Amino acid sequence: MNDAFPFSAIVGQDEMKRALILTAIDPGLGGVLVFGDRGTGKSTAVRALAALLPPITAVKGCPVNAPSLGESPDWAGVTTEKLVKRPTPVVDLPLGVTEDRVTGALDIERALTRGEKAFEPGLLAQANRGYLYIDEVNLLEDHIVDLLLDVAQSGVNAVERDGLSIRHPARFVLVGSGNPEEGELRPQLLDRFGLSVEVRSPDNIDERIEVIRRRDAYETDRTAFITRWKRKDAKVRKAILTARDALHATSVSDDILRDCAALSLALGADGLRGELTLMRAARALAAYDGARQVSRDHLRRIAPMALSHRLRRDPLDEAGSATRVERTVADVLG
Amino acid sequence: MNDAFPFSAIVGQDEMKRALILTAIDPGLGGVLVFGDRGTGKSTAVRALAALLPPITAVKGCPVNAPSLGESPDWAGVTTEKLVKRPTPVVDLPLGVTEDRVTGALDIERALTRGEKAFEPGLLAQANRGYLYIDEVNLLEDHIVDLLLDVAQSGVNAVERDGLSIRHPARFVLVGSGNPEEGELRPQLLDRFGLSVEVRSPDNIDERIEVIRRRDAYETDRTAFITRWKRKDAKVRKAILTARDALHATSVSDDILRDCAALSLALGADGLRGELTLMRAARALAAYDGARQVSRDHLRRIAPMALSHRLRRDPLDEAGSATRVERTVADVLG
Amino acid sequence: MNDAFPFSAIVGQDEMKRALILTAIDPGLGGVLVFGDRGTGKSTAVRALAALLPPITAVKGCPVNAPSLGESPDWAGVTTEKLVKRPTPVVDLPLGVTEDRVTGALDIERALTRGEKAFEPGLLAQANRGYLYIDEVNLLEDHIVDLLLDVAQSGVNAVERDGLSIRHPARFVLVGSGNPEEGELRPQLLDRFGLSVEVRSPDNIDERIEVIRRRDAYETDRTAFITRWKRKDAKVRKAILTARDALHATSVSDDILRDCAALSLALGADGLRGELTLMRAARALAAYDGARQVSRDHLRRIAPMALSHRLRRDPLDEAGSATRVERTVADVLG
Amino acid sequence: MNDAFPFSAIVGQDEMKRALILTAIDPGLGGVLVFGDRGTGKSTAVRALAALLPPITAVKGCPVNAPSLGESPDWAGVTTEKLVKRPTPVVDLPLGVTEDRVTGALDIERALTRGEKAFEPGLLAQANRGYLYIDEVNLLEDHIVDLLLDVAQSGVNAVERDGLSIRHPARFVLVGSGNPEEGELRPQLLDRFGLSVEVRSPDNIDERIEVIRRRDAYETDRTAFITRWKRKDAKVRKAILTARDALHATSVSDDILRDCAALSLALGADGLRGELTLMRAARALAAYDGARQVSRDHLRRIAPMALSHRLRRDPLDEAGSATRVERTVADVLG
Amino acid sequence: MNDAFPFSAIVGQDEMKRALILTAIDPGLGGVLVFGDRGTGKSTAVRALAALLPPITAVKGCPVNAPSLGESPDWAGVTTEKLVKRPTPVVDLPLGVTEDRVTGALDIERALTRGEKAFEPGLLAQANRGYLYIDEVNLLEDHIVDLLLDVAQSGVNAVERDGLSIRHPARFVLVGSGNPEEGELRPQLLDRFGLSVEVRSPDNIDERIEVIRRRDAYETDRTAFITRWKRKDAKVRKAILTARDALHATSVSDDILRDCAALSLALGADGLRGELTLMRAARALAAYDGARQVSRDHLRRIAPMALSHRLRRDPLDEAGSATRVERTVADVLG
Amino acid sequence: MNDAFPFSAIVGQDEMKRALILTAIDPGLGGVLVFGDRGTGKSTAVRALAALLPPITAVKGCPVNAPSLGESPDWAGVTTEKLVKRPTPVVDLPLGVTEDRVTGALDIERALTRGEKAFEPGLLAQANRGYLYIDEVNLLEDHIVDLLLDVAQSGVNAVERDGLSIRHPARFVLVGSGNPEEGELRPQLLDRFGLSVEVRSPDNIDERIEVIRRRDAYETDRTAFITRWKRKDAKVRKAILTARDALHATSVSDDILRDCAALSLALGADGLRGELTLMRAARALAAYDGARQVSRDHLRRIAPMALSHRLRRDPLDEAGSATRVERTVADVLG
Repeated sequence: MNDAFPFSAIVGQDEMKRALILTAIDPGLGGVLVFGDRGTGKSTAVRALAALLPPITAVKGCPVNAPSLGESPDWAGVTTEKLVKRPTPVVDLPLGVTEDRVTGALDIERALTRGEKAFEPGLLAQANRGYLYIDEVNLLEDHIVDLLLDVAQSGVNAVERDGLSIRHPARFVLVGSGNPEEGELRPQLLDRFGLSVEVRSPDNIDERIEVIRRRDAYETDRTAFITRWKRKDAKVRKAILTARDALHATSVSDDILRDCAALSLALGADGLRGELTLMRAARALAAYDGARQVSRDHLRRIAPMALSHRLRRDPLDEAGSATRVERTVADVLG
Repeated sequence: MNDAFPFSAIVGQDEMKRALILTAIDPGLGGVLVFGDRGTGKSTAVRALAALLPPITAVKGCPVNAPSLGESPDWAGVTTEKLVKRPTPVVDLPLGVTEDRVTGALDIERALTRGEKAFEPGLLAQANRGYLYIDEVNLLEDHIVDLLLDVAQSGVNAVERDGLSIRHPARFVLVGSGNPEEGELRPQLLDRFGLSVEVRSPDNIDERIEVIRRRDAYETDRTAFITRWKRKDAKVRKAILTARDALHATSVSDDILRDCAALSLALGADGLRGELTLMRAARALAAYDGARQVSRDHLRRIAPMALSHRLRRDPLDEAGSATRVERTVADVLG
Repeated sequence: MNDAFPFSAIVGQDEMKRALILTAIDPGLGGVLVFGDRGTGKSTAVRALAALLPPITAVKGCPVNAPSLGESPDWAGVTTEKLVKRPTPVVDLPLGVTEDRVTGALDIERALTRGEKAFEPGLLAQANRGYLYIDEVNLLEDHIVDLLLDVAQSGVNAVERDGLSIRHPARFVLVGSGNPEEGELRPQLLDRFGLSVEVRSPDNIDERIEVIRRRDAYETDRTAFITRWKRKDAKVRKAILTARDALHATSVSDDILRDCAALSLALGADGLRGELTLMRAARALAAYDGARQVSRDHLRRIAPMALSHRLRRDPLDEAGSATRVERTVADVLG
Repeated sequence: MNDAFPFSAIVGQDEMKRALILTAIDPGLGGVLVFGDRGTGKSTAVRALAALLPPITAVKGCPVNAPSLGESPDWAGVTTEKLVKRPTPVVDLPLGVTEDRVTGALDIERALTRGEKAFEPGLLAQANRGYLYIDEVNLLEDHIVDLLLDVAQSGVNAVERDGLSIRHPARFVLVGSGNPEEGELRPQLLDRFGLSVEVRSPDNIDERIEVIRRRDAYETDRTAFITRWKRKDAKVRKAILTARDALHATSVSDDILRDCAALSLALGADGLRGELTLMRAARALAAYDGARQVSRDHLRRIAPMALSHRLRRDPLDEAGSATRVERTVADVLG
Repeated sequence: MNDAFPFSAIVGQDEMKRALILTAIDPGLGGVLVFGDRGTGKSTAVRALAALLPPITAVKGCPVNAPSLGESPDWAGVTTEKLVKRPTPVVDLPLGVTEDRVTGALDIERALTRGEKAFEPGLLAQANRGYLYIDEVNLLEDHIVDLLLDVAQSGVNAVERDGLSIRHPARFVLVGSGNPEEGELRPQLLDRFGLSVEVRSPDNIDERIEVIRRRDAYETDRTAFITRWKRKDAKVRKAILTARDALHATSVSDDILRDCAALSLALGADGLRGELTLMRAARALAAYDGARQVSRDHLRRIAPMALSHRLRRDPLDEAGSATRVERTVADVLG
Repeated sequence: MNDAFPFSAIVGQDEMKRALILTAIDPGLGGVLVFGDRGTGKSTAVRALAALLPPITAVKGCPVNAPSLGESPDWAGVTTEKLVKRPTPVVDLPLGVTEDRVTGALDIERALTRGEKAFEPGLLAQANRGYLYIDEVNLLEDHIVDLLLDVAQSGVNAVERDGLSIRHPARFVLVGSGNPEEGELRPQLLDRFGLSVEVRSPDNIDERIEVIRRRDAYETDRTAFITRWKRKDAKVRKAILTARDALHATSVSDDILRDCAALSLALGADGLRGELTLMRAARALAAYDGARQVSRDHLRRIAPMALSHRLRRDPLDEAGSATRVERTVADVLG
């Protein structure tokens, strides 16, 4: 983690970076789905953001990174109050991961050697208070994606298998990448991601050269490269921490709430998740901007990433969904 | 459970709330199937209702919440008569749950360590005397749905596997949610749910704002929010308890029975479950209303939720099934 | 079992009740297949009939209900001759039952703890000398249905698995329910059921009201309800027992045999099972009627249930198969 | 076995009975495939024939019925030369039989309790020197049918699984029943059965009555019925034993060999199995007739059962295959 | 093995016999694929050839028949240098063989009883220095065929499973039989067999009679029959052994190499396996003929079996592939 | 390995040889995909290259060939610093390899015998610092290919299964062979291979003869053949080692970077992997040529192998992708 690519050194990809920053300010936003080609640095960005965040404080030995002894689950058997610093966890779902490693499962070693039925925590425990990254959400089996989204939303991992009946906190930001050309995600899944952004390889030649140059420099001498970007990263970190503190004090007027609902209705988005996310993401953005209350401008900037993945396909409208959102924003908000 | 969203604070969704209340008055009505989009608060409503009900009294340590020592199953090994209060159980079927956790199974730990073949109760045991909630019934495997409906109807969980032959009481109200766009349920399954209701996201903008406002308030300060709604919830609870007591004294005249049968016949519903449910649900509604006997008006209010999921599809009639039921009610009952 | 719904209190459904009574008189008739919608009380009827029959006498502790020590299988390890009374067994095949629980299998507990390869009897052992009820035969896997029919016909359960080689008596009446709308049964399976009947929800409104009224009364106070019908049930029981005794003395003339064969031939039924069943069922009916010999009238009353499920589909003849049988009976028997 | 239905009491079905008798005279003929509807007594006939044959002499305790200690396989652990009489084995392949029970497999009990890798013989061992009956060959999985035919032909069961490498004699006559309406057998399988016959329910009414009458008599009092047919059965047995002795002395002239080859060629049967079987079956028939050499008349009577299942389908020739064989016999033999 | 049918007593089938003889002279030729109907004696021929070859000399107890202690693999645990004679192994792949028995696998007995992870060799070990016969290559699962061809080509069996990582020599001639009517083999598989021949049932009546006569004689008295053909077999054996010795001294001129390449190019065969095989098979044939160098005549006789299974299908050319090869041979070699 | 076919003795196939040499100079290039018919020596070439490279220095007993004790993973339990020489590993993925052998898995032996949960390294561990060869990438299951590419790219094998959570270095060059006629690879997979080349059987007759001649010579006397080519191989080795040293000093001008980006854009290749690979491969080629900086000529020679497998299919352009790359190179670079 220590030698992750610096967040600020990522060339372009502003939408993706903004979405990630918002989840760092309000982790309850519901995860980010990143659409786009392979090779556009999605995984790098998640790792970079987490490396930029300050370490978390956790009970020593606690498998779910609990911030205090009282919150450490019973089955973990932790007894001392000692606290340690850990980097913000980023858990990567390896290809071919099995459900038992995701949720945790019976500890076979203890079952065999001591005849005890103990719980062995899984990746969801590791990801508590951090990020869970899934490359190519479309390649995961549906039931694992469902499970991850369920846990991400409820913040609780409930394990009912192997005769175990365990629950533990599992609050994390889910970041998934998907390639729309490899088959669509079900609308139900899309709706459950808070934000979505699209990334593309830059088609500006200088930007491309800059990408290659930075990556080559990074691979040639990581330490030197990271040092060079330290100050810029620190600035982003400070802005995030300030925004976190300001979040609850950032007010949302009734007019803005009405705008959120009106936008959702005008776009025909199912359910209420769209406007809830829109309101919360706008609030986080306002806090990041240092504003005391959410403005229509915040809504405008946030609407595409909060709503475009919730539109029903309209066969008569060939515009992309981000464009449709922007058009509607213009209509509704003026 | 203690900090569940208050039942009375749910905006709109009157049909769903009424159906849930009826199952609290007469748990033998056969469960509720809630159709509708994700994000419309179905799971919240079930949890809210259960939190509103008074706690149940159960033998201490009894895995099936038996109300007395005599009713606790032998295999549970409970020996003292001591009674405790427990909240009305709400069991959530997690995605990917396996059949053995649903029904209970061989206790592998005891089998391995002590060489004994003991039964380890499952979610059906936990759900006894409470609610079992299945999100997206359509995503569960057919054989598990069949099994749940069988148990819900008979009130008994019979386990014949791993060399075990166990039965225990499993009386619960099954609440399932389904999204009609993700594939139809088999008519056989539909018929076995007592009631069905449809929920939608409100399309009234003020209602939508109210939903977001309440949810934001709840998430900002749960305790304060719950306190604010306590009195309204207490009123509903009292009405339910009064109705439960009055239920057996609420009479159903022969004319009303005839109306039930006539409605079922006119709608061409298969079997007799439709009119049985109609009669019982109308009786529960009458008891909730404080009426001493069931009137045609009760039938009118209940008929759509008792019958609309039992209609055969009529390709020549484009009206939704609730509309067809209402039309027929008007024809038959005047 | 003690509080089963009284057999005589079942409204209508005369054909189904008659078929069940015949299997109680001559269990070798080969089972009953009941076609019809869910909710028409098929399972209730089987349970009701078994509850009405006198208890059987069996060796204490014998897992196959053997009537004497000599007939108890070796592997059961029963050694004392003590006899006990047991209700006529009714075994219900739960959904999702596994083949090992049906046939019995290696007793894993003993294998693990004592290193012995012992047989653990299954549902076929329990069902010996009683009834095995399968709801929705069409939903069972083919290989289990085949297995059940094989055992039902031979009266012997042969287990060749897990290195076991076990046989035990398994004489039971198989009662299956099927819904013709959920996919057809293979002709081979149909042919192996002795009798078939069709049940429908009554379309007479008074009958429907009577069904609801009785069921409501039963659920309100089971004991009172059962007491009210005791005498009628006793009458049916006595008639069945008398008929059992008279069965072997009830003669079948050569003319009647010729009629059986002529009917089968005229209907183009495959094999000889049709006429064999027809003859035996008519004989049982005659015995139930108290007649000393089988008459053409007995054949007439029995022919539809013995033959209609054995007809080949005739695409040019739109009449139902029961109607076709009746027409042919009229032609052949005059 | 002792109370099997008497072979001579089977009404009609002469072809099937003749084919079975020939396999008793020359077990190397390659099995019989019986086509026809269920309920035509195929299984009864096999059992009847085996019951009619004299008992075999086998080493006591030998799982493969070896006729002498030297021929008992090593793994059987038999050490005394003591010989016993056993009825000719008839092994029935139960539905759902697993490959390990067919071929034999690792003895799990001994593996678990004594840590030894011992062989537990299967149904092929039991069937050695007898009959193996498969009802509805079409319902068995292909790989098991292949396996049975391979063993039937080679007379050796080679087990290569679970780390075992075992072989033992497995010489038996394979009798399979098939229903051509349930899907065709692969030509390769057909070709490997020595003989094939077709059975039908009689369409002569008196014959049908006779079937029912005998079966009823048999079921009413087995002992009496069997006694009544004892003498007829003894006559058949004696003829079979005489024919067995005479078999090797029954000569086949070059002209007859030429006839066999000419018939096969004229019918376009693949491979040489057709004429080999034709020659051997004709020789067995001649021996049964008491003839000293095979005549053209023997060929004529045997040709349909030896060749009709080896014909290629001829879409231009609507005659059944038995008819086509007879026509060709007439052409070639005059 | 001792009483195998004599190789020289096989009637006709000259191409198949020649191909087998060539593999005995140069086992590196790459196996033989025999196309043709069942019942044409393919398996008999392989067994006959192996029985005719002189025994091999192997270290006593070595599971891979190693010719010296140094070549016996470590895991075999052989320690004495003692040599024994064994017949040339012929291993038959039984139907339903599992991959673990083919390649060898973890020795479960030792794992369970002694807690050791030992290798238990499989059929590939047994086949080393001999023949592996697969009846109906098309019926084997693709991954097993691939595996066999890989091992046959590399001469090494590499086992990476159950935590084992074992290699041992596995040099054998693979002989497969295939029935082109049961589905084609993938071109990749075809290409990896060295030679291919087609066998048919003879359509000459005298030849057919001769087949039956010899087979009858063989089955009547094996010893006498084998004795009768001993001398002819010895002659073939001697010719093979002479050819083996002469093989390396048999020269291939540059012109002949050019002919091989030209033939392959003219036929459009993929890759270089065709001409390599052609050259080696021609050399083996020359050695068998006692020639000192390969002539165009040798190429002519060998080309169809070396090349015809490597042709691409040509939809405009209806001639069989052997004919196409012969035509091209005539064009190219004159 | 010691008697591998000499790299320099491979006739023709210059593109494949060049691609392999470049991966030896810069192993971070991302693997090579070799398209072409079977029998064109792909596997031979990989083995030959590895045999030509100097041995690697590794900690004795380290399962991942770590170059120093500090880099040997904890679970390996290596404690002494002793270094040994090992040949550059070439790991061959055998057909039918299971995922657990690829990634490593729970050591079952230790789990069973000592009750410990230890990691047993797999083929990815063996391949560290060497080559991993997969014959017929198209035949591997997708999830294994994904896994291999993921590990190849990240250089780390992360195992999350069986309750293990292990990571170890796994830096290797992946070489895959594919046959485009057997089904296409997914574009995502193609993009992740660094280089691609196409090989064909030579259609020049003299070249074909030379191939056969050399292969025959090699098989006749390996030692002599290898000796003959030793000097040529040494020359290649020296050039590779010199290039490795020079690699970091070989500069890439901004103009060349611009050319790389321009080429990628003009070809419409997705993502940035194309130009990154192009730049790195050109740099490796320049180093091999002894040039101090990358020239356009290097780009020209490398572009087809770096880019042609990343093109989108253009249905209007029938030229092969290598041709399209060359055309675009001519357009862009002049």
